[in-house]
Amino acid sequence: MSTTTISLSGVFPPIPTPFDEEGRVDLAALAANLKRWNEYALAGYVVLGSNGEAVYLTDEEKVLVCKTARAAIPSSKLMIAGTGCESTAQTITLTREAARAGADAALVLTPHYFSGQMTRESLLHHYRSVADASPIPVMLYNVPKFTNVDMDAATIAQASQHPNIVGVKDSSGNIAKLADVVRLAVPGFQVLAGTGGFFFAGLTLGAVGGVLALANVAPQESIDIYELYKAGEWEKAADLQRCLLPVNAAVTSRFGVPGLKAALDMLGYYGGPVRSPLLDLGASDRDILRGVLAEAVLL
Amino acid sequence: MSTTTISLSGVFPPIPTPFDEEGRVDLAALAANLKRWNEYALAGYVVLGSNGEAVYLTDEEKVLVCKTARAAIPSSKLMIAGTGCESTAQTITLTREAARAGADAALVLTPHYFSGQMTRESLLHHYRSVADASPIPVMLYNVPKFTNVDMDAATIAQASQHPNIVGVKDSSGNIAKLADVVRLAVPGFQVLAGTGGFFFAGLTLGAVGGVLALANVAPQESIDIYELYKAGEWEKAADLQRCLLPVNAAVTSRFGVPGLKAALDMLGYYGGPVRSPLLDLGASDRDILRGVLAEAVLL
Amino acid sequence: MSTTTISLSGVFPPIPTPFDEEGRVDLAALAANLKRWNEYALAGYVVLGSNGEAVYLTDEEKVLVCKTARAAIPSSKLMIAGTGCESTAQTITLTREAARAGADAALVLTPHYFSGQMTRESLLHHYRSVADASPIPVMLYNVPKFTNVDMDAATIAQASQHPNIVGVKDSSGNIAKLADVVRLAVPGFQVLAGTGGFFFAGLTLGAVGGVLALANVAPQESIDIYELYKAGEWEKAADLQRCLLPVNAAVTSRFGVPGLKAALDMLGYYGGPVRSPLLDLGASDRDILRGVLAEAVLL
Amino acid sequence: MSTTTISLSGVFPPIPTPFDEEGRVDLAALAANLKRWNEYALAGYVVLGSNGEAVYLTDEEKVLVCKTARAAIPSSKLMIAGTGCESTAQTITLTREAARAGADAALVLTPHYFSGQMTRESLLHHYRSVADASPIPVMLYNVPKFTNVDMDAATIAQASQHPNIVGVKDSSGNIAKLADVVRLAVPGFQVLAGTGGFFFAGLTLGAVGGVLALANVAPQESIDIYELYKAGEWEKAADLQRCLLPVNAAVTSRFGVPGLKAALDMLGYYGGPVRSPLLDLGASDRDILRGVLAEAVLL
Repeated sequence: MSTTTISLSGVFPPIPTPFDEEGRVDLAALAANLKRWNEYALAGYVVLGSNGEAVYLTDEEKVLVCKTARAAIPSSKLMIAGTGCESTAQTITLTREAARAGADAALVLTPHYFSGQMTRESLLHHYRSVADASPIPVMLYNVPKFTNVDMDAATIAQASQHPNIVGVKDSSGNIAKLADVVRLAVPGFQVLAGTGGFFFAGLTLGAVGGVLALANVAPQESIDIYELYKAGEWEKAADLQRCLLPVNAAVTSRFGVPGLKAALDMLGYYGGPVRSPLLDLGASDRDILRGVLAEAVLL
Repeated sequence: MSTTTISLSGVFPPIPTPFDEEGRVDLAALAANLKRWNEYALAGYVVLGSNGEAVYLTDEEKVLVCKTARAAIPSSKLMIAGTGCESTAQTITLTREAARAGADAALVLTPHYFSGQMTRESLLHHYRSVADASPIPVMLYNVPKFTNVDMDAATIAQASQHPNIVGVKDSSGNIAKLADVVRLAVPGFQVLAGTGGFFFAGLTLGAVGGVLALANVAPQESIDIYELYKAGEWEKAADLQRCLLPVNAAVTSRFGVPGLKAALDMLGYYGGPVRSPLLDLGASDRDILRGVLAEAVLL
Repeated sequence: MSTTTISLSGVFPPIPTPFDEEGRVDLAALAANLKRWNEYALAGYVVLGSNGEAVYLTDEEKVLVCKTARAAIPSSKLMIAGTGCESTAQTITLTREAARAGADAALVLTPHYFSGQMTRESLLHHYRSVADASPIPVMLYNVPKFTNVDMDAATIAQASQHPNIVGVKDSSGNIAKLADVVRLAVPGFQVLAGTGGFFFAGLTLGAVGGVLALANVAPQESIDIYELYKAGEWEKAADLQRCLLPVNAAVTSRFGVPGLKAALDMLGYYGGPVRSPLLDLGASDRDILRGVLAEAVLL
Repeated sequence: MSTTTISLSGVFPPIPTPFDEEGRVDLAALAANLKRWNEYALAGYVVLGSNGEAVYLTDEEKVLVCKTARAAIPSSKLMIAGTGCESTAQTITLTREAARAGADAALVLTPHYFSGQMTRESLLHHYRSVADASPIPVMLYNVPKFTNVDMDAATIAQASQHPNIVGVKDSSGNIAKLADVVRLAVPGFQVLAGTGGFFFAGLTLGAVGGVLALANVAPQESIDIYELYKAGEWEKAADLQRCLLPVNAAVTSRFGVPGLKAALDMLGYYGGPVRSPLLDLGASDRDILRGVLAEAVLL
């Protein structure tokens, strides 16, 4: 179990996994994207998250992505790896492999297939087992729009008592709940806003940072929100937040990972194709997306 | 149709309807509560909202509540009346009666019984018909947790083009959507946060005020959030927002109207019984509620 | 409280409420429709149900519909009136008025606005209060697609112990639950399938009849399913059931009350307009509907 | 692609995967269970379905389960293997491995993680790609309670036009939809009821068989429903169906896979532990389960 403390403050893009035209993981493109993102004051990266299409990667590919990303990420920045699988055992295996591949922390999705049986008891048992076995700190990952499991504030707070469970990425969009977690969890437990839509609001209620798909396409602007917040320039931060909302929607709820990858292509990163059953963004949606990026002066 | 402009800025408590022990509307208690709330710098009141148990009132009682409230509310404060019924025709009738009884604006709940058929087209037709016929400005009221109808930002924006539709109370808790409404609606369209859980966050994203059950039990604190926000003292506003969240939850999602009425009783207002099928708050929940109020130093 | 027993066996159409072109209740059309339906061996009718657009009628109109319908319905057929309102008190008032207007039984919709607080306890309290006060037998009405309240089998079974609660119309479509209700309720409690989609299946699992929108447009075919079932000719009943499913869908889930009324117009009954916010069926949907009726040889 | 026809008529238990006390797959127990089930006139088995805890198995374990099961299943009975993964590519890989391991057909779960993007277009593209690549016939598997994706009848009907997509297991419980699929799909497309709760009803509406968790614990009774149905003795079939409903609920919606495994233990099969994050059935639930089995005279 980890004994060092880890700071999750700041902005973390959950980076997509590049695929080439044959659908293979494109490690060179991954490294190239990271090289460019490294120019920004990002606190680190999440690899193998939802936006990394982790559900479409084999175990071997996952480890390869970790290793390649780690080599491209300076040690001054964190690499957080998504390691949640449906079973506790597989989650532990993948967490250990991610740690060996250089991950600083593991982001563990709620198991969810048998959602009706994912009770507080079973979720706590799962997370505690993973945290006991993990050589790196564990973060909870709550994203009901994908899982239909919504871990409540009291459950998260109970989990926070485990010394190796250090934070949560909450993507439910429920800011009152986010504040509840901050209030109920053990001191030092770190809450991250899970989407750009409530990043500033989350910060004002006690979040220490954000894991934002938005930060892939607008890294500096995302960092600016964070820095302005820290500097007490909240009105400017809120203005920026407001301005970025349509961009955030375009790369999340509106167009999903296909939108995120298309936006990266437009911005000079490598986006490339998504894996089936996802479908690449169609031409008319690309036009809309281009308009959204242009209006936010990202293009 | 209204030709004057109306300002919805500030804090509006959606006041409960007092019932006596026999279950009759207690007009004296209503007036007494208002007299006390009038001491605060509230912008006005919402009568006959969800918290007013409007669904449990007869048409006659609704008019009586309006008249009694109006007599107790100084002309310097707005009285907004909930007038939404399932049918367009009944909504128009009640809106006109509320106007005659002195309401300054009508808050019109989305019709919802046949939720699958409440399309953008049918909702717009409904709201435009009501707005055409209403002698007072109309506000949209979107509260999916009660209606299972969630009017989207584009629909609200289309409705905002009607000159007599002046604002929206959105209780969905989705702050990205709230900002979308601000962005897409016609200039001057007024967005009100529909619950205390995202009041401060809503203000930072363009809301002009809030209709907050919380403001019934913590009027000064609710006003303070608003005033601190206006004065640029956002950190203090956020601190207060965070501190009030458990109170807000207790009088809304956690204990509902029974919780709100019980809290009013504890605070020296008249709360009294709810109407069946709601059940009054039980003893153990009252104890919890008392603790929440005490911790927020309201008791 | 009722002391006589009432049989709910057989087929009951939940009849629509006719409106004229100005939107007024058309009592003559109501009587004319009933006169034609009376030619069939229907067990009775439900007035003021969901298909009767009860949520769009005033209290006065509801009583008028009851009286007019009763005058047109022979005493050999039951008139069941939908009398459920949000409040217990208004439900009691309307139930008594319906009884005075000649209703043989009251069909009481689950209250649902504060759906999160419609617990087993509050629902049982509501139904028992109504049943205590009602001069006619009470039937429960569970229709989660409209109410988002789904009364479970155990709650229905508890309610069935009240001597004046004689049956349930369940429109959830969950046939395993329907059978559970039959198994758990007191002997003699009568379960009615609430939609034509599972009428035959419901009969095979213990339902005694059905309240079927389908029976408005296909009364003889609906009766045939019932009679074939009773005669042990189950394969013929199932064939007919299968054949009628597209018709049933067209007048319920697919096109709703606008579809039901349009179908009645096509079949020589009076359908007429729906009330706003519902919208009358558009031309292209009418064409589809006509095709569905033609394929089932109803046209 | 398959060129032979395959008959899916009859009863198929979706068998659980036995684990030993250390949590390893217990192949001997798997074979022993099958040996006992082989004594019944089951049409075959589903391995690696939801009840097989497939989401908790590694790829290696899945292949091992297929091989072991195939060796224990006579060639006169079908082995259907659950091979659906989130990605199209992994689904194809696993389908081919299952075919090599002796599976007669592949049961392919709807991909669902990005449920909002699982449109008709993406689902059809997925299934057609899998069917093109599969050496064995493909069956669709629709189970919204686990996936929150509910493939509609029209989509299933479109998929049925692919020559290598031969059937569907539908576990939605919506019998009207099941009949719609029968009506809209190409002739010869085979529909299987996906749960014991609507097995008889499904048969009467055109299903050719069922994949029933119930058949693990009540194989003869499940077969009896099917045989009585085929023999025209529908009333007896319905009686049996009604009688088995509480058992079916106990091993599905009520207690899930932990309930199914506990029931097998009680009945002399090997049930054994579930994999974490599922939790084994507690003592009091076991008592309830024992009572349910006893009342149905299975114990």
